[in-house]
Amino acid sequence: MTKTNPGRFFEDYQLGQVIRHAVPRTVSGGERALYHALYPARHALASSDEFARICGLSAAPLDDLITFHIVFGKTVPDISLNAIANLGYAEGRWLRPVWPGDTIRSESEVIGLKQNSNGKSGVVWVRTRGLNQSGEAVLEYVRWVMVRKRDIAAPAPETVVPKLSNAVEPAGLVVPDGLDFTRYDFDLAGENHRYADYEIGEKIDHVDGVTIEEAEHMLATRLWQNTAKVHFDATNREDGKRLIYGGHVISMARTLSFNGLANAQMVIALNGGAHANPCFAGDTVRAWSEVLDKSETSAPGVGAVQLRLVATKGDSGSFALRGEDGKYLPEVLLDLDYWVLMPR
Amino acid sequence: MTKTNPGRFFEDYQLGQVIRHAVPRTVSGGERALYHALYPARHALASSDEFARICGLSAAPLDDLITFHIVFGKTVPDISLNAIANLGYAEGRWLRPVWPGDTIRSESEVIGLKQNSNGKSGVVWVRTRGLNQSGEAVLEYVRWVMVRKRDIAAPAPETVVPKLSNAVEPAGLVVPDGLDFTRYDFDLAGENHRYADYEIGEKIDHVDGVTIEEAEHMLATRLWQNTAKVHFDATNREDGKRLIYGGHVISMARTLSFNGLANAQMVIALNGGAHANPCFAGDTVRAWSEVLDKSETSAPGVGAVQLRLVATKGDSGSFALRGEDGKYLPEVLLDLDYWVLMPR
Amino acid sequence: MTKTNPGRFFEDYQLGQVIRHAVPRTVSGGERALYHALYPARHALASSDEFARICGLSAAPLDDLITFHIVFGKTVPDISLNAIANLGYAEGRWLRPVWPGDTIRSESEVIGLKQNSNGKSGVVWVRTRGLNQSGEAVLEYVRWVMVRKRDIAAPAPETVVPKLSNAVEPAGLVVPDGLDFTRYDFDLAGENHRYADYEIGEKIDHVDGVTIEEAEHMLATRLWQNTAKVHFDATNREDGKRLIYGGHVISMARTLSFNGLANAQMVIALNGGAHANPCFAGDTVRAWSEVLDKSETSAPGVGAVQLRLVATKGDSGSFALRGEDGKYLPEVLLDLDYWVLMPR
Repeated sequence: MTKTNPGRFFEDYQLGQVIRHAVPRTVSGGERALYHALYPARHALASSDEFARICGLSAAPLDDLITFHIVFGKTVPDISLNAIANLGYAEGRWLRPVWPGDTIRSESEVIGLKQNSNGKSGVVWVRTRGLNQSGEAVLEYVRWVMVRKRDIAAPAPETVVPKLSNAVEPAGLVVPDGLDFTRYDFDLAGENHRYADYEIGEKIDHVDGVTIEEAEHMLATRLWQNTAKVHFDATNREDGKRLIYGGHVISMARTLSFNGLANAQMVIALNGGAHANPCFAGDTVRAWSEVLDKSETSAPGVGAVQLRLVATKGDSGSFALRGEDGKYLPEVLLDLDYWVLMPR
Repeated sequence: MTKTNPGRFFEDYQLGQVIRHAVPRTVSGGERALYHALYPARHALASSDEFARICGLSAAPLDDLITFHIVFGKTVPDISLNAIANLGYAEGRWLRPVWPGDTIRSESEVIGLKQNSNGKSGVVWVRTRGLNQSGEAVLEYVRWVMVRKRDIAAPAPETVVPKLSNAVEPAGLVVPDGLDFTRYDFDLAGENHRYADYEIGEKIDHVDGVTIEEAEHMLATRLWQNTAKVHFDATNREDGKRLIYGGHVISMARTLSFNGLANAQMVIALNGGAHANPCFAGDTVRAWSEVLDKSETSAPGVGAVQLRLVATKGDSGSFALRGEDGKYLPEVLLDLDYWVLMPR
Repeated sequence: MTKTNPGRFFEDYQLGQVIRHAVPRTVSGGERALYHALYPARHALASSDEFARICGLSAAPLDDLITFHIVFGKTVPDISLNAIANLGYAEGRWLRPVWPGDTIRSESEVIGLKQNSNGKSGVVWVRTRGLNQSGEAVLEYVRWVMVRKRDIAAPAPETVVPKLSNAVEPAGLVVPDGLDFTRYDFDLAGENHRYADYEIGEKIDHVDGVTIEEAEHMLATRLWQNTAKVHFDATNREDGKRLIYGGHVISMARTLSFNGLANAQMVIALNGGAHANPCFAGDTVRAWSEVLDKSETSAPGVGAVQLRLVATKGDSGSFALRGEDGKYLPEVLLDLDYWVLMPR
């Protein structure tokens, strides 16, 4: 019997199955420091305990995408080891901040299954939850992947395609307990633009670029205990390059968006996202954003803004996204749809 | 008078001499986060405070090899600055876990001396101890190195070759106080294989590979305050490569062994080890293990397994170790013999 | 209206203006661990809580240059985004150690303005202060930069050139409260040389060299939330190299100086400094020091030593600094003048 993890194949998933993922992780200021070394992270709420207290929190939570990466990384050995493609995200909601000292684990429920017509693979939908040491959910999202079958002769399951929202409704956004932007310090946050200053349809070129090195994306991906071998093993490809974890591009783009969205302090929902093209070391990542929607919240001084965040590996000045054929342009790496909180 | 450290030469060591090494170090969650970024570290006991508590500990200790690297790194300026070769390890035992907040220092006692027949160098055996802020030993091991003489005319010391065990006896293994695997959670640990599932003689190919970058091994080596210049100064070699610290390969192999040995939660003894061939940036490191021995312990639910851990820079599928001439094959980087603890 | 930060131009500065910089940052053991991974940092006082207590402090402060980098990094978007040249430093004083848990922010006062004769740019002098969560100053220094004008037709301000000290006077040095070197442990610190062993005019070759990688300097620079794009964007230059943040060279040289100055435990004043030539990935950095002055302090067992610290990218053995034309030699990267504290 082999002792190593062969991963799950399509026929190993059953509707309603709940998978408890390994390995729980206690976070500290170390994860924050590394995140701030790996990305140009400067949102004040996740950088300063004092700033967080002025905003009604007990201390600075970790950057919201740290939570995402930790929760996501744990699912890789169970969900995407034999995946052919990462097809999409939906209904992502941050439900509670994560602070240094918290211990995070993940579990996923299979909520949809559809065998492909070729009989060789199928699509699996899972709703993944990140839980803290008290069993409280900190994040949930739906993800669907195309997975190989081990045995082509295995019978197809009943097709169940979950009905998913195109975007989290404003009423479904969960603002952290106590969050209050009425005493917000715009000087310390770095920009003066508030909720009222962003218009639906507005596009922002975030200007800065970062050229990616192999060492950096491997450090980042390992930090989240995501050990999918394509990210680490140069012998997998003839050119010796390693495929960069899509989440590395998400964090790079989000942190680059500080320049123009410095007050978009918290990410609270992930409506959808596509890794349009692969990213490799040597690529210079840039980003631009588009304001998709806005909504006030019941928290004092807090507004929610729905944004498209696009990462590119070429010049992003033209805000180009898709070609005439409707397909993503080759320089587009990421097209992400998410909600943030900012001061009104 | 030169102010820089010239290192000790063979004639500077005397039997029974105790060397207190610089520099003490207080560890935090920062060292853990970096370790998890530098290596694919996923053993649950060192990752999660909650998991550690279920196993009877007060919180997650640092990965046992962090302790080894910190203790070892401090000895470099006193023991191996003028070393020609690192000849071996023996009788290594982890005596107490290290937790964030602990301060570690090292000291070494000279336990053997033997001048080489050429009169130009000699072998020095030291027993090194790592101590925490309370003066309690956390690790001890014997190491022997070949060291140059400063003055060839210096008289040879009396030859004393210490008698060393081939392996730590099961009765000599020190299981951490309170360790209890009776409530062990195999889901969260990542694999179901327990003590009873491993057979003496069994070999496990750990499958995954990691291609090493210069930046990564330098970050790791500096983190342990090991500043031997061969690891950092590209002008030392014509090809501009830096010789990778052998401990970097040990940690890479140990963490790669998670895939097949996820429940080998703690390293508690180092019986011996050879750095068979040098490792350089660009090498893709893989690992395989062989079960050498097994022994129950008196701690509840805790078994000890003696393992050979082999790191290679080529394909490890064939479990090849030595050629017909008895020498290590050129793709073998490391051959380590150690004891781990896992649930029975 | 563009939302991204265009930076300030020469005509945007007024004498007496105080700029509160974004983004405050709470530090932890994570920043220390990263600093010790990025540089060969081994000064015992910033490495060990136990060592710091023996020296009269409550715990190990962060390395003093971490404070400098954090305070400096925050000023970049407001002071040097449109800078043509970083002209100098003066009157730098560390006023209070920074410990894990502290939150640091920066503010700068404009203390001098002088338009250049070409009318296209001018020199701005600022006195920058780093403040902790209690509003106590932890560091202050004067820096002056040459900044472009947005509008060449903008009127020149009244010329005010501040009178700056060539060096901080010994009487102006601020020794941390409680610092006491009378129980200093030279073994644990790593060297035996004390205050009395250093002579004015003495030069020390620190011997070791470190070859720099792109990933490392980018990690370091981002960690200080310094996001000046020249350090990250390879498309800025035809050769694809990134200009390395001058502070990276300062920290590399300071930590390399451990070998010969292991007891120079604290940096307490920055008298001046020049980034003589740019540093790029692939350069092997070495360092040498010259003792410029000495002064006892009123703290028990504590002496102050004024040092020149020179970083080079070639062989530093000859202590060469300037050519016959009085200009820095091409291999000189840094010429720094600073005060340190060491045991008498």
